[in-house]
Amino acid sequence: MLLRTLTRLTTSPPLKHRLPSLNLSNHPTTHRVAILTTTVKMSFTTKAKIASFGGTLYKLSHKSSTTGTEMAVSLYLPPQVVNSNAKVPVLIYLSGLTCTPDNCAEKGFFQHALAQRGIAFVLPDTSPRGLNHPGEDESYDFGSAASFYINATQEPWKKGYQMETYLTEELPETLFNDEEFGRYLDGGRVSITGHSMGGHGALTLYLKYPGLYKSVSAFAPIANPSQCPWGEKAFKGYLGEDREEWKKHDATELVRKVKKGTDLKMLVDVGTGDQFYQQKQLLPENFEAAVEEAGAEGLELRYQDAYDHSYFFIASFAEDHVNHAAKYLLA
Amino acid sequence: MLLRTLTRLTTSPPLKHRLPSLNLSNHPTTHRVAILTTTVKMSFTTKAKIASFGGTLYKLSHKSSTTGTEMAVSLYLPPQVVNSNAKVPVLIYLSGLTCTPDNCAEKGFFQHALAQRGIAFVLPDTSPRGLNHPGEDESYDFGSAASFYINATQEPWKKGYQMETYLTEELPETLFNDEEFGRYLDGGRVSITGHSMGGHGALTLYLKYPGLYKSVSAFAPIANPSQCPWGEKAFKGYLGEDREEWKKHDATELVRKVKKGTDLKMLVDVGTGDQFYQQKQLLPENFEAAVEEAGAEGLELRYQDAYDHSYFFIASFAEDHVNHAAKYLLA
Repeated sequence: MLLRTLTRLTTSPPLKHRLPSLNLSNHPTTHRVAILTTTVKMSFTTKAKIASFGGTLYKLSHKSSTTGTEMAVSLYLPPQVVNSNAKVPVLIYLSGLTCTPDNCAEKGFFQHALAQRGIAFVLPDTSPRGLNHPGEDESYDFGSAASFYINATQEPWKKGYQMETYLTEELPETLFNDEEFGRYLDGGRVSITGHSMGGHGALTLYLKYPGLYKSVSAFAPIANPSQCPWGEKAFKGYLGEDREEWKKHDATELVRKVKKGTDLKMLVDVGTGDQFYQQKQLLPENFEAAVEEAGAEGLELRYQDAYDHSYFFIASFAEDHVNHAAKYLLA
Repeated sequence: MLLRTLTRLTTSPPLKHRLPSLNLSNHPTTHRVAILTTTVKMSFTTKAKIASFGGTLYKLSHKSSTTGTEMAVSLYLPPQVVNSNAKVPVLIYLSGLTCTPDNCAEKGFFQHALAQRGIAFVLPDTSPRGLNHPGEDESYDFGSAASFYINATQEPWKKGYQMETYLTEELPETLFNDEEFGRYLDGGRVSITGHSMGGHGALTLYLKYPGLYKSVSAFAPIANPSQCPWGEKAFKGYLGEDREEWKKHDATELVRKVKKGTDLKMLVDVGTGDQFYQQKQLLPENFEAAVEEAGAEGLELRYQDAYDHSYFFIASFAEDHVNHAAKYLLA
């Protein structure tokens, strides 16, 4: 490992980004590199390395300057990266309320199809952790594990709760330029998916940043957050009372603005047995109506009979979502 | 539901087994049936019914006369049972230390391949629960969730810890004759698999009861428990000090007794990164040597590079184990 590190250093590119501040006691790898040189860019600490479906799942963390916290993120490298110089495309998965990067890695069953198609998987965390804002850990649907993947404008949340910037700028820049992992990942071929709050995140980031992602899909997304209890609570807390501001972060409002005939390249699954769909927290019908009004195309919205909101639902259709992304990532 | 129940009652067979004692407040379905008649045999309480890979996962419980406790068991019915009168074969999965029927259902991903092959899945619990034997809940590797799937002979464990009888007699008899689920399950086509302690359970029950199972497989089995710390602790506690008695429940000792040329129909996977393999808790090499000494055939023992002891390992090879069982169940 030391020899491998030394060998790499001789060929490592000049530093493009400042090294993250190091907690040397917890960062053996980074520590070793830091001692040898400061010209290498190894931004992640590997907490676990797990063999999965012929590839490797890495549980990582890195110091984020956007959130001001140590951010957990998991990365799955499919078997195709082994002994290959060709970079693989990337599918980003945004998790739902209460989740960490672990839940989907353990229960989502994406690795099975990702390994077949040769696509890497990136699982960011659902919020910053440990900022100690008042009320941060008091409810499952606001604060920790409930960022809604937006940039908060309200005190105290605007400090750290800048997940939109983290996900669209800092994380990809750090990951795709990382000295250890970047050489395997093609930052020019990225798609995004997510579940529930993460489905909202995937749909909104895709619509806010045209061209950043090759395609999008979602499982049981909160598709019209301005009009459901979960979204109203989160947007009021993070964005304030102005509902016009909320519309900038609502997939149903965002899709109204796409040009007629736009190919959305979008797959959405919703289970008819999903209690949150039944409770009108998801409102895919509003999103579908807005797509039709806008005259956009390429939305495949499927209602899956009897499926609930759980990872059993996600696992059952993960292969379809990987194949949807592969249509555009491997084109 | 009531109508469906009433319709069933008119055609239900006479009672072959006594009804389990009912906790009416918690057993709405059983309650209704009990009020209508006592001639129906519906032995399970459904705690959850979850759509998964086109089939249905049932989280069940039933009153066991063998253990004297309410036993949890999960059942996956593949999509093939829907609108079909043909019964499907059954794969039984025995879980490892600390587990319940939930872990493998959530993280093992057998359902993906079971749905493709049309095989039902039965996940029993890892021990009786709540007998309140002294020390029952004091360690992860003895007592609750650590039955080792044998019939204990020592006090106090011989009371209730009779998992071998439960798994080979009461559970299949109850399940395959159940008025709600039995009509879908072919009790004449059953295979068995398991992980770690459950791999020990699968291998030993298969070797103890020739003909009861069509085939066997195991993930990281405790293959020679008489010779490893986990097995020594469990066998001493459940079976006493006589190591000759231990041999009757040790796969490596049992396989020595098979006839030369016996086709074991056995698939075993072990990860080379498995800390418990490295710590000599599993000892597959002893089992393999015993198979060779006995002149038995049909053992496929695979060492999977870098895989650990986790469900990531199980999920990665679940499809292979389902296909191994399918070779014999669907022959």
